[in-house]
Amino acid sequence: MSAPTASPMDGSPQVPGRIMAGEMAEQPAVLRRILEEGAPRIREVAEHIAARNPRFVLLTARGTSDNAALYAKYLLEIRLGKPCGLTSMSTTTAYEARPDLTDCLIITVSQSGGSPDLVASTKAAREAGALTLAVTNNARSPLAEVSEFHIDVLAGAEKALPATKTYTAELLALYLFVEGWRGGDGAESAKALPDLAERVLSRQDEVRQLAGRYRFAERMVLTSRGYGYPTAKEAALKLMETSYIPALSYSGADLLHGPLAMVDNISPVIAVVTEGKGGEALQPVLDRLRDRGADLVVIGSQAQTERASAGFALPTDGLPEELQPILEIIPLQMLAYEVTIARGQDPDAPRALAKVTETR
Amino acid sequence: MSAPTASPMDGSPQVPGRIMAGEMAEQPAVLRRILEEGAPRIREVAEHIAARNPRFVLLTARGTSDNAALYAKYLLEIRLGKPCGLTSMSTTTAYEARPDLTDCLIITVSQSGGSPDLVASTKAAREAGALTLAVTNNARSPLAEVSEFHIDVLAGAEKALPATKTYTAELLALYLFVEGWRGGDGAESAKALPDLAERVLSRQDEVRQLAGRYRFAERMVLTSRGYGYPTAKEAALKLMETSYIPALSYSGADLLHGPLAMVDNISPVIAVVTEGKGGEALQPVLDRLRDRGADLVVIGSQAQTERASAGFALPTDGLPEELQPILEIIPLQMLAYEVTIARGQDPDAPRALAKVTETR
Repeated sequence: MSAPTASPMDGSPQVPGRIMAGEMAEQPAVLRRILEEGAPRIREVAEHIAARNPRFVLLTARGTSDNAALYAKYLLEIRLGKPCGLTSMSTTTAYEARPDLTDCLIITVSQSGGSPDLVASTKAAREAGALTLAVTNNARSPLAEVSEFHIDVLAGAEKALPATKTYTAELLALYLFVEGWRGGDGAESAKALPDLAERVLSRQDEVRQLAGRYRFAERMVLTSRGYGYPTAKEAALKLMETSYIPALSYSGADLLHGPLAMVDNISPVIAVVTEGKGGEALQPVLDRLRDRGADLVVIGSQAQTERASAGFALPTDGLPEELQPILEIIPLQMLAYEVTIARGQDPDAPRALAKVTETR
Repeated sequence: MSAPTASPMDGSPQVPGRIMAGEMAEQPAVLRRILEEGAPRIREVAEHIAARNPRFVLLTARGTSDNAALYAKYLLEIRLGKPCGLTSMSTTTAYEARPDLTDCLIITVSQSGGSPDLVASTKAAREAGALTLAVTNNARSPLAEVSEFHIDVLAGAEKALPATKTYTAELLALYLFVEGWRGGDGAESAKALPDLAERVLSRQDEVRQLAGRYRFAERMVLTSRGYGYPTAKEAALKLMETSYIPALSYSGADLLHGPLAMVDNISPVIAVVTEGKGGEALQPVLDRLRDRGADLVVIGSQAQTERASAGFALPTDGLPEELQPILEIIPLQMLAYEVTIARGQDPDAPRALAKVTETR
């Protein structure tokens, strides 16, 4: 069960996955930077947008950033009561739909800010009357240029192909934006995050232990509900793009509407059980999975992990439910990394991927 | 490659999959019924809603109906220029979010109209000021009761656990609704559909041939773009819930943002290449897949199937792009059926599923 390399997560050179490991390890520092340096500017943007009072919000993104956008959708609906949607980008770029976007805010989330389809659809949205906000890791990107407002997630250059630190940075920036729009003090509520992230990152041995379960897995299912659902989707993406294990993610409710047929004793399940209403809503699904004898690994509270086959107990220390996703994903990033190392592959070099994906 | 039963698709009793086969075979008749008997009432509902001029549309559904809702989202954005979103139901049912839904139309799509969470979220939406429309296969369902407007998809009782005829019925009903809202004559544009569906259904031998490729597959990837994307998602769901093969679906653009790493010569790909702008936008993805030597099966035009490893040529006969999804899914339903039979399983009896899924 031990990894084939001596110290895969210390960032030393020429070790498989050293770039991804180094960037995962930067996450506490990035979160701290956003809270200390980024928060005032994010709040200012939020106040400008609040003053314009958009009634509908559309989120546009791809890949990892699309999972961050989904997290923002939950915040916007639950915390702000704004009807939201995720855009189907091809309606603009391939079909040239030009909906009337008066009273709409379009939030485009992209690490690089460079994908031509995101730039084109944001530009078209602005021309169609929308307020536009870009959330990127590159303040000088074409996407930031074409958007009326811009939030820099301050994660520093990301070189590993699997995005890690930019995901948690996007989540925190989006959280601060929504709280700023509400007139709350998001930075105060989130102040424990960097230390909690450090505690999670220090538990590499536990994650390596968990990774042993999946070394020979042919498929995996991830599930959650509410705020944790974007975590399940992002974890599935991370596992697939590093280890190539087919990882399917479903909201707990959708899992019962069909894919449950696929879950049996050869399909291990990872459940993200956020402490709060999302975790409560997931309980009937967990019961059903236990009844079926599924191999169930839980990322959640100590009490939840004890009722599962195995787990990773999150140190949430009273962190509000809506902030837990920023923590929950970290052991799952580490898991994707460790499973990949255990399978003798290099997490830094997924086949066939380019860092800036130029879809049109 | 031959199926283990003598006549799996003739609906004869005591044959595995006979219920699903019978319901697939009913599709031309159901489509005809909607065009002949359902269209006037659907148009009437569309005119009422058009007169109220909602500015934003939210679609609520789960499972197969969620894929029908996604199809409607493309129609509403492209054909009507309405900004749209798919709802995250738990924001209402678990978190009790009560967004201001003035000027919003909420379309809830559900075969049974019976799932408590759909009923609760539709009721809450109506109380929050939304116009509500239920699209169901049961005019006397709780969902139809709580909605201001109702469209009956007229598919007749569906008994097989994998939904087939209600999916194509939902697509056609939603198409007629959107065309009615635009003031067009959807029934006229769609009149060739029942006969085309019959022609597809008659080509069972070809599908059985294709099924041979997947009999021992451990995973599958489905992709498309634009109007065909809901088809890829629904085909993946159908394959999983009948054969239990993990089937992942991605829009062509999202496939390039990560999951492509997983596609290699052990992950066969099925691409739904709609004739029109969606299919054109998918070409760079198809080229990339061919470059990687992927096993690529295409559902699309004769010209497209000839450039793939194998395929099923759709007889579209000039059918508008937006109507092709109603046809495209049929060979994929048949494929799910044939793969399941070839693997010695019963498509009518997926493990662990109930027909009316009561999620809350």
